[in-house]
Amino acid sequence: MAVYTDVSADDLARFIARYDIGELLSYKGIAEGVENSNFLVHTSAGNFILTLYEKRVAEADLPFFLGLMEHLAARGLNCPQPVKNREGGMLGVVAGRPAAIVTFLDGLWIRKPNAGHCAAVGEAMARLHLAGADFPIKRPNALSVDSWRPLFEHAGPRGDSVRDGLCSEIVTELDVLEKNWPRDLPAGVIHADLFPDNVFFLGDRLSGLIDFYFACNDMFAYDVAICLNCWCFEPDHSFNVTKGRALLKGYEKVRPLSGIERAALPVLARGAAMRFLLTRLVDWLAVPEGALVKPKDPLEYRGKLRFHQSVKSASDYGLS
Amino acid sequence: MAVYTDVSADDLARFIARYDIGELLSYKGIAEGVENSNFLVHTSAGNFILTLYEKRVAEADLPFFLGLMEHLAARGLNCPQPVKNREGGMLGVVAGRPAAIVTFLDGLWIRKPNAGHCAAVGEAMARLHLAGADFPIKRPNALSVDSWRPLFEHAGPRGDSVRDGLCSEIVTELDVLEKNWPRDLPAGVIHADLFPDNVFFLGDRLSGLIDFYFACNDMFAYDVAICLNCWCFEPDHSFNVTKGRALLKGYEKVRPLSGIERAALPVLARGAAMRFLLTRLVDWLAVPEGALVKPKDPLEYRGKLRFHQSVKSASDYGLS
Repeated sequence: MAVYTDVSADDLARFIARYDIGELLSYKGIAEGVENSNFLVHTSAGNFILTLYEKRVAEADLPFFLGLMEHLAARGLNCPQPVKNREGGMLGVVAGRPAAIVTFLDGLWIRKPNAGHCAAVGEAMARLHLAGADFPIKRPNALSVDSWRPLFEHAGPRGDSVRDGLCSEIVTELDVLEKNWPRDLPAGVIHADLFPDNVFFLGDRLSGLIDFYFACNDMFAYDVAICLNCWCFEPDHSFNVTKGRALLKGYEKVRPLSGIERAALPVLARGAAMRFLLTRLVDWLAVPEGALVKPKDPLEYRGKLRFHQSVKSASDYGLS
Repeated sequence: MAVYTDVSADDLARFIARYDIGELLSYKGIAEGVENSNFLVHTSAGNFILTLYEKRVAEADLPFFLGLMEHLAARGLNCPQPVKNREGGMLGVVAGRPAAIVTFLDGLWIRKPNAGHCAAVGEAMARLHLAGADFPIKRPNALSVDSWRPLFEHAGPRGDSVRDGLCSEIVTELDVLEKNWPRDLPAGVIHADLFPDNVFFLGDRLSGLIDFYFACNDMFAYDVAICLNCWCFEPDHSFNVTKGRALLKGYEKVRPLSGIERAALPVLARGAAMRFLLTRLVDWLAVPEGALVKPKDPLEYRGKLRFHQSVKSASDYGLS
C-alpha cells in the first residue's frame, strides 16, 4: 500500500499540460507498490499511471528504469511505456518529487497461479532477458550476495525476536552462499522482482509485466531462481514441482539454460530465498508496534530456503 | 486512505459477470474514503468504482445510501449512480463484504477553494436538498447533537492529552449546544459531509458530488453550517467572509433561507464544528503511537468553534 505524497489538482494539471495526453479529468492515488506514490490518471486521451519517486528509489537510477521500459516496449514486450513530454523528456517534477507518466496496462494479477500461469511467466521472463540484451545503460544489482551480510548486520540480533534461532540459521547460510556464489554465468538485464503482483493476465493470456524498479544487471538464472521462489511454492511453503517444471519449460522454450546455469540453480534459489528473507526481516523489524500496515512475513522465505537446502540438483525443480 | 480488503481477480470477475458492464480488464485499490474499501475497475465498457462496505458502515443503511444516489442522479444531480445487476439489485457480496458498483465520475477536488468554488458548492448543496425532497427512505442523523456527549465521554479525560483544557472547553460548549439546539427548522435529506474532497470540479465547473455515506435526514441549514466550516476557513483557522458570502449566495440562488434558519446559523455552525472536533478527537486517540497513518487534527475544529462562539449574527458569515 502506497501513496505517500498528496498532489494538488493544480500541480498535476500544470504537469500534464507539458504532455500531449489531453486534458486532466481525474486522478486517484492507488494502493500499489511500496516504494513510490502511484496515481491512476484519467485524461481525455485515456488512462495513465503517474509515479512519484519517493526517497527509497535513487534518482540516479531513474534513467535506467525508464529507459529500460522504453527499450523493452520498443522490442514488443508488454510493459508500461514512459510517455515523453513535449521536450522529449520522460522525467519531470511533481510536488517536489521526480515524476513520470507511463501508459496504463490492462490486466489482473493472479492470487493463486496454476502451472499454466507459471509457464507463461517463464516464457515472458526469457523474452525480457533477450530483449534487454542491447540495452546500453548498466545498473549493478544492489541486492545481490555482497549486500546480504551488511543487510543482516543491520537487522542484527533482533532477528531472533522474530523466531528463536533465526540469526544463526542465517549466518550459517550466508557462509555457504558467499563461498559458493557463481560469478561467471550468462548475465544481462533481469527484472529481479517478478512476483505474481507484477505480472498481469487477461484470461489465461499473460498481458504484461510491470514494476521495473528492482531491474538490474545480473545473472539470468538468478531471475529464474527468484521466480521459482515466488511462483512455485504452495501457501504451506511446499514446492510444487509441476509448477516448477512448467516455469522452466516456458523459459527454455525461448532461452535454453546452459549446463553451468542448470548446475547453479540450487544455490541461486537459496540466494534468492535469502535476499527476500533478509529484506522482509529488515522491513518487519522497522515497523513500530501497533502500526496498521503489516509487513510481509519473513519466515515464508525461511521455509523456502530450507527446501532449497534439501535440493540435490536442478532436476528437483522439474528441469528435464 | 483505505483499501482494507484484498479482492482476488477470480472473485471480482465472478461478481462483474452478474452485471452488464462488459469484461473485467483491470482493478486497482484506491486510496480514497476512510470507511470503505474502494477499487477503480476498468472493464470493456469503461471505468467504474467498486465499493466494499467495511464494518464502520451499517449494512442496514445501504439501501438508503444506494437508493439516495440513484434518486438524486435520476433528478439530474451529478453523483455516482449505482449500477444494477441483471436481477435488478444494487447490492452484492465480494470477499465476504456487502459490495456495490457505481458509475465513475470524472473531476478533481480542489485543495485550495476560492470564492467561486464556494458559490458552486452552495448552489449544488441547495439542489441536493430540493432533489432529495421526495426520497422515501428515512435515516436519522446518528452524529447530531444527542450523540455528542456520549462521543465525548467515550474519548473521556484523555482529551486533555491532546491539548490542556480541551475537555472543559468541550463540556461548556456541549451545555450551550444541548440547551439551544434548534429542533423545528426545515429538514430533509442532507449530505452531512460535503468536504472539498467530496466535491469534484472540471475547470471552474462543479462536475459532481460523491461519498454519500454520512447522508441522513436533518435540518438543511445544518448542512449549510457544515460547509461554512469546511469550505470558508483559511489554513490559519481564520474565517474568510468573502467565501462565506459566496457559499450562502450560491445556496440562496436555489433555496432561500428562512428567517428562523438565518437566526439559527451561528448555533448550527458551532454544532457542526463540535461534531467534527469530537469525531476527530476519537480517531486521534484511537491511533496507536508510531502508526504510519496520521489522523486529522481535532484542534483545527476547536479553532473554528472559537470563531463561531464570537459570531453575533448570521451576517458575520456574509449573509445579506
